[in-house]
Amino acid sequence: MTLAACRRFAGWSALIAVGMALALKLKEARFGEPYAGTRVFCLASDGDLMEGISAEASSIAGHLRLDNLVLIYDDNHITIEGDTDLTYSDDACKRYESYGWFAQFVDDGHDHAKVRAAIDRALAQKDRPSFIRARTHIGKGAPTKHDTKEAHGEPLGKDEVAAAKKAMGWDPNRQFYVPPEVYALFKERAAELAAEHDAWNARLKAWRTAHSDLAPKLDAFERKLVPENLYDELLKSLPDKDDSTRNLSGALEQIVARLVPSLIGGSADLAGSTKTLMKDGGSVGRGEFRGRNMHFGIREHGMGAICNGMALTGIIPFGATFLIFSDYMRPSVRLSALMEQQCLWIYTHDSVFLGEDGPTHQSIEQLWALRLIPHLYVARPADALECAAAWAIALGRKDGPIAFALTRQKVPKIVRDEGFSPKDALRGAYVVQDAPGGKPDAIVVATGSELHLAVGAKAKLEGQGKRVRVVSALCLEAFAKQDEAYRERVLPKGVRKASIEAGRTLPWRSLPS
Amino acid sequence: MTLAACRRFAGWSALIAVGMALALKLKEARFGEPYAGTRVFCLASDGDLMEGISAEASSIAGHLRLDNLVLIYDDNHITIEGDTDLTYSDDACKRYESYGWFAQFVDDGHDHAKVRAAIDRALAQKDRPSFIRARTHIGKGAPTKHDTKEAHGEPLGKDEVAAAKKAMGWDPNRQFYVPPEVYALFKERAAELAAEHDAWNARLKAWRTAHSDLAPKLDAFERKLVPENLYDELLKSLPDKDDSTRNLSGALEQIVARLVPSLIGGSADLAGSTKTLMKDGGSVGRGEFRGRNMHFGIREHGMGAICNGMALTGIIPFGATFLIFSDYMRPSVRLSALMEQQCLWIYTHDSVFLGEDGPTHQSIEQLWALRLIPHLYVARPADALECAAAWAIALGRKDGPIAFALTRQKVPKIVRDEGFSPKDALRGAYVVQDAPGGKPDAIVVATGSELHLAVGAKAKLEGQGKRVRVVSALCLEAFAKQDEAYRERVLPKGVRKASIEAGRTLPWRSLPS
Repeated sequence: MTLAACRRFAGWSALIAVGMALALKLKEARFGEPYAGTRVFCLASDGDLMEGISAEASSIAGHLRLDNLVLIYDDNHITIEGDTDLTYSDDACKRYESYGWFAQFVDDGHDHAKVRAAIDRALAQKDRPSFIRARTHIGKGAPTKHDTKEAHGEPLGKDEVAAAKKAMGWDPNRQFYVPPEVYALFKERAAELAAEHDAWNARLKAWRTAHSDLAPKLDAFERKLVPENLYDELLKSLPDKDDSTRNLSGALEQIVARLVPSLIGGSADLAGSTKTLMKDGGSVGRGEFRGRNMHFGIREHGMGAICNGMALTGIIPFGATFLIFSDYMRPSVRLSALMEQQCLWIYTHDSVFLGEDGPTHQSIEQLWALRLIPHLYVARPADALECAAAWAIALGRKDGPIAFALTRQKVPKIVRDEGFSPKDALRGAYVVQDAPGGKPDAIVVATGSELHLAVGAKAKLEGQGKRVRVVSALCLEAFAKQDEAYRERVLPKGVRKASIEAGRTLPWRSLPS
Repeated sequence: MTLAACRRFAGWSALIAVGMALALKLKEARFGEPYAGTRVFCLASDGDLMEGISAEASSIAGHLRLDNLVLIYDDNHITIEGDTDLTYSDDACKRYESYGWFAQFVDDGHDHAKVRAAIDRALAQKDRPSFIRARTHIGKGAPTKHDTKEAHGEPLGKDEVAAAKKAMGWDPNRQFYVPPEVYALFKERAAELAAEHDAWNARLKAWRTAHSDLAPKLDAFERKLVPENLYDELLKSLPDKDDSTRNLSGALEQIVARLVPSLIGGSADLAGSTKTLMKDGGSVGRGEFRGRNMHFGIREHGMGAICNGMALTGIIPFGATFLIFSDYMRPSVRLSALMEQQCLWIYTHDSVFLGEDGPTHQSIEQLWALRLIPHLYVARPADALECAAAWAIALGRKDGPIAFALTRQKVPKIVRDEGFSPKDALRGAYVVQDAPGGKPDAIVVATGSELHLAVGAKAKLEGQGKRVRVVSALCLEAFAKQDEAYRERVLPKGVRKASIEAGRTLPWRSLPS
């Protein structure tokens, strides 16, 4: 794969590009030639560089020595409020050198030869990503809006466009006009690229023949293949003890890791606390990409962006931290939902029961704040079986992300009615213990560490002659996708409902009454 | 004020410290001597430096040339997962130099003389903040846990503490023991500091006498004084036209700025779009602190942290951006609520009606995600009068932050019942138009740009013989503080309710039915 074949990666933000470059390195380490020499080019703006997420992602890229990444900084000195002098004095090249990048300054970013030469020097680098600060001019060629903030935030307008065309020697009255020389140039270039692409396909075909063992593995990896019997495999090996759901989930993750090679991820300096380390996985580190365990450092937002880039490049990524720190990476979580990417966000210490860290670390509103993000699933399992269901839902959902909410504290194994089928847990909400004859006076809905409290409440209330059903709402978003008959069966209208969950309760009051 | 007097600032995170240093500069520019030579010292960890928010805040500090800020980086090479080599290769000094800071490396951060010398060099700097990377050892003196991650994440334990004491020549069996030399040293130092403090008070007293004009202004500023008649003043000057609430709020902000000198703030590169520029305020810029308009650049999270630091240091700060970008600064918003600080978060473009920017910029879940943060107020005004009420609520609330949600699009002026008193709007929710005789069959609750739709719906429904009340829920959190009688009067139980708001609707279903 060559420069040309990777052009589709350009234009993403600096941060997602780091995840893409990392994914290519990971795949090269596993499959060799098909990914050898692949590169990611990224165009970044002043905004990208000012946002802290670029600092996090670029620091990781430098640390990992991602020499397949070239970031071109479109240094046009203009933001919405005006000249960058208003707010921005960074020495961008020095800053990127401090992250371990190779940095170059091109004094005229409109000079193709100069930019080409800088890219060539970048491509010759080993062991470090490349940063090219290219000084450019916004609205170049527009007679009055050249180098102005108006060229950033507003359309040039009819007169300015006409004047710009005139200044370039074009007919100002012609619109959507492409000169024949441009057509010719593109045609010629398209043919070159098609030839490159054919050559690459031929090389890939030869590689497939020579590596008949690896080729199907590559396809399975790229397709993020998950065995159809994953849930059954997990159910076979359920840890059979009272434990925290972070521990239970961590034990099941070991099985998932064995069955799903595309799963690669890590935590923001909390592997031991989130229990997300894949024991036989090895680490991804400086110039070392054979492992599966990422170490993102104390950089939640960068972790989010990198996972998104990995998901776009043939990996099933997971990023782990405490639930409270989901706030630090919320824009990336939202983007994973908007882009319909299979990202797993594993959040532990999911309530005030997190221990000694105090209010800055206590999740109160985070569960519902995540549930409000459109197209994101949120799974809060109550015991080992529900942890298995959460993993099965997560791995089965190819077109969107899921957030796990897991406890630090030990929770008891839930006793379910005899008729319970583990498949029901995959439906997002299900009857854990029903009222006698399936005719409840009231329904208690609970999640995660509070489900056993609901079971206890039912026993007490039944001692007082009340008929109570307990429903687990493991994943409300998966439940919402069930047909109406199932939803009505689990949570029938006209029956009073109560909810138990450690966190903001207000949105729970919207259960159909 | 001297080094000693400012020690209380130490220990905050790097980012809030930038806001504190800025606040002192702003106050020095206004009042001179009482703030001259004040300094902020900040101890930062690996975590502080890895998080992108430090990049944002430090870049702003360098740009503004905050030479009253000294950041000491406790470079102990250990994070929770292990050695920082696992994730972190930044050349920290070079990085801070790239932000325009004066950077020094102290090879032994336990050598008091070396640290002192570095601090002295830092204090001699003009026109740039100072960064001191001090190489330290975590768990220093603990025989087996020195330089280990265990010393970060866990208590040393009884045996290790005893062994450490023994190694230092102390009695391992004595607990909570302070040697007499230490008592003597602290006593001596306390006397020195008390004398310094007395001298400073004497200087301040002399300054007060010499500046009888400025002294009361300083007191009013420090106390964040707001005139009692602020709301009346705003009501007198209500813009009388249909307009976007960002424009209406921006017009009222000009009056607030005149009446409340402590109000200082700005936007994350969106002053023109958020309409938050104080027209006669001047700009805060490189080494220039007389102005009131901050330019935070494209750094929402840094803006949040800096505003928090300013609020802790005698300023009423505001930070403005699009509502969607509240996600980028959510941890700082949460912290402002947790710290009970009067921060104003001004968010515009508050719904899908934001124009051409598309789904990445469309607020869907942000309103409710903010409302879920404990102790944060969220105000979504519907017209000029409600904008005035939002400002009055914001300025009157000394012990907590408020988020404004303002439209980009024009909204019509709301027609209210004759009996309406503007004071009712301060109660967070109120009856805009009542059903005949005050006896509704149904209540329509709406906020902001959807309130006029509720008024229109009422008219239509009444044409069909329905008796409808329209309630504006300008600020649900202020409404929740009203007595039960008022709340019952506005939203009586037993009456059907509907809500209209552009955004996630689910939590609205929790209105008492």
